[in-house]
Amino acid sequence: MTYEFRLRRRVEFYETDMAGIVHFANFFKYMETCEHAFARSLGTIVHPGENDHGGVVGWPRVHAECDYRRPLKYDEEFEIHLLVREKKDKAIHYDFHFWKVGEQADRPLARGKLVVVSVGHINGEVKAIPMPAIYAEKLTVAPSEILARYEVKA
Amino acid sequence: MTYEFRLRRRVEFYETDMAGIVHFANFFKYMETCEHAFARSLGTIVHPGENDHGGVVGWPRVHAECDYRRPLKYDEEFEIHLLVREKKDKAIHYDFHFWKVGEQADRPLARGKLVVVSVGHINGEVKAIPMPAIYAEKLTVAPSEILARYEVKA
Amino acid sequence: MTYEFRLRRRVEFYETDMAGIVHFANFFKYMETCEHAFARSLGTIVHPGENDHGGVVGWPRVHAECDYRRPLKYDEEFEIHLLVREKKDKAIHYDFHFWKVGEQADRPLARGKLVVVSVGHINGEVKAIPMPAIYAEKLTVAPSEILARYEVKA
Amino acid sequence: MTYEFRLRRRVEFYETDMAGIVHFANFFKYMETCEHAFARSLGTIVHPGENDHGGVVGWPRVHAECDYRRPLKYDEEFEIHLLVREKKDKAIHYDFHFWKVGEQADRPLARGKLVVVSVGHINGEVKAIPMPAIYAEKLTVAPSEILARYEVKA
Repeated sequence: MTYEFRLRRRVEFYETDMAGIVHFANFFKYMETCEHAFARSLGTIVHPGENDHGGVVGWPRVHAECDYRRPLKYDEEFEIHLLVREKKDKAIHYDFHFWKVGEQADRPLARGKLVVVSVGHINGEVKAIPMPAIYAEKLTVAPSEILARYEVKA
Repeated sequence: MTYEFRLRRRVEFYETDMAGIVHFANFFKYMETCEHAFARSLGTIVHPGENDHGGVVGWPRVHAECDYRRPLKYDEEFEIHLLVREKKDKAIHYDFHFWKVGEQADRPLARGKLVVVSVGHINGEVKAIPMPAIYAEKLTVAPSEILARYEVKA
Repeated sequence: MTYEFRLRRRVEFYETDMAGIVHFANFFKYMETCEHAFARSLGTIVHPGENDHGGVVGWPRVHAECDYRRPLKYDEEFEIHLLVREKKDKAIHYDFHFWKVGEQADRPLARGKLVVVSVGHINGEVKAIPMPAIYAEKLTVAPSEILARYEVKA
Repeated sequence: MTYEFRLRRRVEFYETDMAGIVHFANFFKYMETCEHAFARSLGTIVHPGENDHGGVVGWPRVHAECDYRRPLKYDEEFEIHLLVREKKDKAIHYDFHFWKVGEQADRPLARGKLVVVSVGHINGEVKAIPMPAIYAEKLTVAPSEILARYEVKA
């Protein structure tokens, strides 16, 4: 049973914009990278195609958000901390916290959220369906004191 | 005085992902395009560099979010409707509503929000400073009945 | 019969990098946009899915290149000129020339090339197959004096 | 003295397009990532800003190209092999070879080239200037038999 995942990454030059910082839309790509690595760590894959995953063919996002506190720059290393905030039959709510490597203590760069829904094909239409067993079994909601720890810091 | 802007655009092939739809992060790029076109319509520019705009050199985002209702696909034309939800001394809150062209009536694709802050250099640091006069003068908050119309539909 | 297409576009903020100019990889996206608009002008579409286009389901690139002469910046308007350099049974060679609007005469920004191949499904594999009739009928190779005009300028 | 660098990476979901493969423009981002990691391995940085690197502030590309042999897909791991093909006073020519992890032997995915120029500010203009000493000292041209090995394979 797991409710968190950490990923370390370095800012690419092509992720910056003319303001000299990471373009804000790229934080959503970083969240995706972290979510997909988390799924891999569970032994599954976010976009399985038509292979058998209980009929689930993907996890479209129904909500995405990010709060930006401090800029992230070229070549800087940062860490993303994924936490499972909520788990429903057909949906997962993820929280993401961004830190510059070496500044872990109390200086968040950004925090984000994704709400994703497991979908499959029903009568030729894409519909929400129960998530694959591997998520249902292995993934759990983060304890409220872990979630709350970030509330205080932020 | 203006509080809204509309932009029409077509989905590019490179904006899609292997799920066959526009990648979710691109909706934030679409909002940016619309915000910048709105600024242009006011006679100003979002990223002025060091030219005189009351010392404002840019508008970093402090918050971005999007709710996704229905997928948007390659080659489809869509419309973005920007509305000014809130206007402070140093910040603007924008709402964005996405529609497929030809479906205007009651089928939103997505809705988004950006909160942007006007910044300048103060003693070598980037700080929030009052927005340029052109925004202060020309931009106004959308009437609540306009903002509310979307609440009902969504 | 046509062998050329022109597209005008403005640089988006999100297309710039920290060097303050359009990131070099984006010129390939600009070429794609122009190629797809050209196909649309012929009455067809580059990525038709499984609809009938003589069995052609897409046009993967086998070669792409770009020479960069001068930088392109945020908010600048530019024009792309597509020319058909070569046309084979299953492949098209496109040339692309980039100009800043208002500088048309003798100051190219960049020139690019794409070689694209029409493919379909044959026995479950993606293979090169003859291009759809609409390309075969409507698209022709640019006269050598048109192609040569750019050689001189460049 | 070094003339090569290898980087391993996994395909991100956001790098795919609706054809189900890595979008062709992303191979140029992969080359950039590898070039920047190579510079880091030499103890320098491709985009140093205004810090002292012999006055060099960046390395704009003057040429970029890629030949695509086989598609690369979501979640696949691949390797990029950078080789220095040519070294001039103010320019470096890089070759890049892409392989799927596990297929190293004789099945290249793609090959690419970048020609980059070291630039600095001279009288307020960006001009080509001699490359920083660290490149001049540490970087050498790949032996012709190494470069040729790929010619045979491709």
